[in-house]
Amino acid sequence: MQPHQTRLRVRYAETDQMGVVYYANYLVWMEVGRVEYCKALGFRYKDMELEDGVLLAVVEAQCRYLYPARFDEDVVVETRVTAANLRMVTFGYEMRLPDGARKLATGATKHLFCNRGMKPVRMPAKYWAAFGVK
Amino acid sequence: MQPHQTRLRVRYAETDQMGVVYYANYLVWMEVGRVEYCKALGFRYKDMELEDGVLLAVVEAQCRYLYPARFDEDVVVETRVTAANLRMVTFGYEMRLPDGARKLATGATKHLFCNRGMKPVRMPAKYWAAFGVK
Amino acid sequence: MQPHQTRLRVRYAETDQMGVVYYANYLVWMEVGRVEYCKALGFRYKDMELEDGVLLAVVEAQCRYLYPARFDEDVVVETRVTAANLRMVTFGYEMRLPDGARKLATGATKHLFCNRGMKPVRMPAKYWAAFGVK
Amino acid sequence: MQPHQTRLRVRYAETDQMGVVYYANYLVWMEVGRVEYCKALGFRYKDMELEDGVLLAVVEAQCRYLYPARFDEDVVVETRVTAANLRMVTFGYEMRLPDGARKLATGATKHLFCNRGMKPVRMPAKYWAAFGVK
Repeated sequence: MQPHQTRLRVRYAETDQMGVVYYANYLVWMEVGRVEYCKALGFRYKDMELEDGVLLAVVEAQCRYLYPARFDEDVVVETRVTAANLRMVTFGYEMRLPDGARKLATGATKHLFCNRGMKPVRMPAKYWAAFGVK
Repeated sequence: MQPHQTRLRVRYAETDQMGVVYYANYLVWMEVGRVEYCKALGFRYKDMELEDGVLLAVVEAQCRYLYPARFDEDVVVETRVTAANLRMVTFGYEMRLPDGARKLATGATKHLFCNRGMKPVRMPAKYWAAFGVK
Repeated sequence: MQPHQTRLRVRYAETDQMGVVYYANYLVWMEVGRVEYCKALGFRYKDMELEDGVLLAVVEAQCRYLYPARFDEDVVVETRVTAANLRMVTFGYEMRLPDGARKLATGATKHLFCNRGMKPVRMPAKYWAAFGVK
Repeated sequence: MQPHQTRLRVRYAETDQMGVVYYANYLVWMEVGRVEYCKALGFRYKDMELEDGVLLAVVEAQCRYLYPARFDEDVVVETRVTAANLRMVTFGYEMRLPDGARKLATGATKHLFCNRGMKPVRMPAKYWAAFGVK
């Protein structure tokens, strides 16, 4: 599966008094990348929750901040699946300015497939192909 | 019912590049005041949702910003019920620095009692006294 | 000046445990609408801050919540200037689902022109035309 | 230097439609722990920014999510400095329910000392003792 690129624009709300984007907001951008990546894979994360009752509970997240993003900049979030099995999936992210010259941050999130009661479950078979699991 | 005071400290995350608290965060503080107010009234908002399946859906919110709050300041949120009937309740808020000299903001939120399906319901009888409804 | 429409997609981060968008986030969406509106008017809000040292400090905000927005929905934010003079400007907002049939919320924000020290200043002459002030 | 404990209460705003705290908010809690830790060390982070013009720019953050935090729970954030030199400092965090039985998350953030222009600088001498650097 190819990495997927989505684009967003930095909101004023996302900055802090340092004049740059507050560090926790990069994790929100990773979520945006992840959701759009699922659409590119052929399903909606929303439907996985609503129809299959399967949630992607985050068990680990990390981010390296390379260059500060600023208000009103366009940011490209490139998302890929870096590992997946029947129990979990790991996404990798790269955030950069659109010209491609400036990398802002890299990150990763690891998720467990869970039911609505937050108990681990196996990935439903219909998603195996999308996540490259067989 | 007396107004209730709760105190919070401004987080770095709550500031923006103007160097002051981002305006939407005052509504978060109103929620903090509201939740603590309910405790002072003798019940937990959490239990109302979990046990009675009753939610306080916001139908209106407003805030007047008088003086900017800044990082690491202590803020007192004073909350009161300004109107209530079997269908809705209105809270009023005043946010100020602890010395009392400086008023930061005033606000109000109006809520409908709803069930989990977001349909309007009557306030359960057990809350009538707390909200001054009979 | 015509109202300006901008579009955004509801983030998971913007929902709360009620399963709908948390009420303070509508004010963030108003900010997104406002910033894009300024671009449609012919200038960048960012430049007004950076180059002219003029900030639009919020003095009042209000929102009426008509129908709950949900995760992954597209939301159209329609923004217009409803009043403006040399000291302040008021924006009006309407948020709805893209089909136009469902209105989610309406709101307004009133702003004072301020310098970096948060003192009121007059709107720079170069913005008079954009805001319809003469 | 002993680890420092600070306590906060989960806000409704911090939950998402999964019914638990949204994962990016744990980084906000780490910031709360970090700021209070500095006070325990004998200085205010705010003053370091304002008086010395020194910022702690985040270069890396990570979090492991062990058990979901829920609305209105009290959370203890235990913060410590795990590494420090003249250029950077690393904080470690442990978040748990107050009874101590349930660990919610662990995390770490690594920071560069920077000036207001976001350029790396040496830690001012007055902070050496607090961070255990000589």
